[in-house]
Amino acid sequence: MKIKQYVINMEKKAKAASWVLPSVPTETKNRILLALADSLLKNRTKLFRANRKDLAQAQRQGLSQAFLDRLLLDEKRIDAMAQSLENIARLADPVGQVIKSYRRPNGLLIKKVRVPIGVIAIIYEARPNVTSDCIGLCLKSGNAVILRGGKEALNSNLAVFNILSQVIKKYHLPEGAINLIRHSQRKAIDILLSQQNYIDLVIPRGGEGLIRLVSKKSQIPVIKHYKGICHVYVDQAADLSLARKVVFNAKVQRPGVCNAMETLLVHRAVAKRFLPEMIRKLQAAAVEIRGCPQARRIVKTLKKASAQDWSREYLDLILSVKVVPSLKQAIEHINRYGSRHSDAIISQDRLRQKEFLDGVDSACVYVNASTRFTDGYEFGLGAEMGISTDKIHCRGPMALEELTTYKYKIFGKGQIRT
Amino acid sequence: MKIKQYVINMEKKAKAASWVLPSVPTETKNRILLALADSLLKNRTKLFRANRKDLAQAQRQGLSQAFLDRLLLDEKRIDAMAQSLENIARLADPVGQVIKSYRRPNGLLIKKVRVPIGVIAIIYEARPNVTSDCIGLCLKSGNAVILRGGKEALNSNLAVFNILSQVIKKYHLPEGAINLIRHSQRKAIDILLSQQNYIDLVIPRGGEGLIRLVSKKSQIPVIKHYKGICHVYVDQAADLSLARKVVFNAKVQRPGVCNAMETLLVHRAVAKRFLPEMIRKLQAAAVEIRGCPQARRIVKTLKKASAQDWSREYLDLILSVKVVPSLKQAIEHINRYGSRHSDAIISQDRLRQKEFLDGVDSACVYVNASTRFTDGYEFGLGAEMGISTDKIHCRGPMALEELTTYKYKIFGKGQIRT
Repeated sequence: MKIKQYVINMEKKAKAASWVLPSVPTETKNRILLALADSLLKNRTKLFRANRKDLAQAQRQGLSQAFLDRLLLDEKRIDAMAQSLENIARLADPVGQVIKSYRRPNGLLIKKVRVPIGVIAIIYEARPNVTSDCIGLCLKSGNAVILRGGKEALNSNLAVFNILSQVIKKYHLPEGAINLIRHSQRKAIDILLSQQNYIDLVIPRGGEGLIRLVSKKSQIPVIKHYKGICHVYVDQAADLSLARKVVFNAKVQRPGVCNAMETLLVHRAVAKRFLPEMIRKLQAAAVEIRGCPQARRIVKTLKKASAQDWSREYLDLILSVKVVPSLKQAIEHINRYGSRHSDAIISQDRLRQKEFLDGVDSACVYVNASTRFTDGYEFGLGAEMGISTDKIHCRGPMALEELTTYKYKIFGKGQIRT
Repeated sequence: MKIKQYVINMEKKAKAASWVLPSVPTETKNRILLALADSLLKNRTKLFRANRKDLAQAQRQGLSQAFLDRLLLDEKRIDAMAQSLENIARLADPVGQVIKSYRRPNGLLIKKVRVPIGVIAIIYEARPNVTSDCIGLCLKSGNAVILRGGKEALNSNLAVFNILSQVIKKYHLPEGAINLIRHSQRKAIDILLSQQNYIDLVIPRGGEGLIRLVSKKSQIPVIKHYKGICHVYVDQAADLSLARKVVFNAKVQRPGVCNAMETLLVHRAVAKRFLPEMIRKLQAAAVEIRGCPQARRIVKTLKKASAQDWSREYLDLILSVKVVPSLKQAIEHINRYGSRHSDAIISQDRLRQKEFLDGVDSACVYVNASTRFTDGYEFGLGAEMGISTDKIHCRGPMALEELTTYKYKIFGKGQIRT
């Protein structure tokens, strides 16, 4: 009951703030963003102290090296957090943008205008830098935000949050503009997701399990991606040396992220010419390769891919390889086993490129380029709140514009309906 | 188990069709839409026969006159259904529209392109004309559709559906492009809403109870509006004769629809001058008026409004009236009791208009015009699938564009990430 009251009070405050934030002038928001950046840099010591508590606790719990790395705040990370807030200050303000404006025959002037969504809740993993990123993006897009970070990062998140809250207060923004849930019980999330009255959108980030749970329980709209099972398809009309370069990059450059390739599809007409050298190159970079029967006839030493491999997100130096008889089958494989995230065709043939682009049902479809480009910064959006593999509201990288909705403003002179 | 298999088979077929529909050329879709219209007109007798069965059954069940009216198919309604399909044929095709196209410094060309959503399920009330409207809109926007109409209209819906299916078959569209659930058990809806794999969007229409149920149970994104509690606020700076005209229209012209006014707010500075004449005029049109204490001090004969009245959607010749001390309080009242649908200010003061437009958190906000214009046709969208009071994906009238999403198509020449 205590947690429930705590969460609902927070939601009410956030809602109240969301009535004020849409009309904060761009200049004021940018000034605040720069002040937020500044205050992070000035309070490094506080941040390190809090972060060391979390790190020590995580080590005692025996959490993985990768986990500890995501949790860590060092000089470089804090610089990057401040830099990110400064970047957001430089981005165009989406609020107030007129999407369409037209006059009807009866004289009514209809304007479709971009506005903030309202209150956004973000449930995320133990990465303290996400705390400041989300606060910056929501502030700039005029939304109030409720943050619920991974419990292992609670001290770090609280430190970031408290430092930023001081600035929010100093600039007389309403207290409810930014909020962080201090309760680490899972129950706090349940309460958050069960109230339809205050929060307008939930964005869960992190492990697939958490995202599925949030998505299942939520009575509030959710935008998410479960995972990134990205494919590169090497077509019969591919430039094979270009293909080798792209495939290598998509798998090896940073295997632990959602836009890295997990499955390589190769048209059977080029499989014999393409695969042996490609596989040698990948194996030289320590990639474990699991092949379909045909691939294993071409490269005899390959491990066997199981039926489950096609729908696995390895997030590691592991790759499944399949030889396909046609472009059509490549598209079908991607739509069946993929995750609607990012997929690429390597081909010099315009018609076959088009068939792939139209046929693959993913947020981002590439011709002759690495899937690794699916990212707010790489797309020129200046920032990133996450990636959506949903089809409702927004798809692919989410940045400022994706954190807005619109309203119609209609101007009349006494028009009535007859 | 039998129903479950039936529903899931239908979903699979719809999904398969959704791979084909996005690439059907606009011209073909338009030709099919005209043929659909034609086939309705040619099969009037079949439609009447089926409809008479539903009507007889509904009469035996003692359903209301309003219900029977919505259920009825007569010459005029069938003409209108055909006309609507012809209108949809004339509308611009949203599929393939390039929303943005830009080149990144690394040479990548990024195109944000409008595409169909995929499979859309529509759960609706006993109105057979909705069956053909939804089929037309989904076909034109490249989506496969699964329809579940009110059980009282099952014979009529099946007749419409069978007639249109013949045309779909004749033009060699995949069978799964249009689907109608024949099972009238509520269980069919439960099954539909529990499968995340095939349906991309659910649009429930009809009574609030049904919509809340769908929204609560659905594991698939839902776009909806629960109700329309629309307000007209007569400001201190209002042209009072314009105000009387608009208020009368918003309440009386068609009280049973979601964009009709349910609450009138009046600034206290003009209440004494405005209300007596306005109330006489409304009462002369048989409107029952329920007033706040201040309104009742001005017009002594008014009924008392209860606390519940402010959040009631009458859909009838009933109006609640409240005198407010300020524009700010009017905005607060609307955001607290309204339904985010449509609200109007009557004022000649630009700054006060702006404050209202920015402050009221509704899909459609009006200056000096009737709320009754919130409608796809009146907005010039040419058609309407429903109204959204959600903030995610789309807001206000939903037509063809709102039935689409987008994908990013990215064109490279071997770009890799470093």
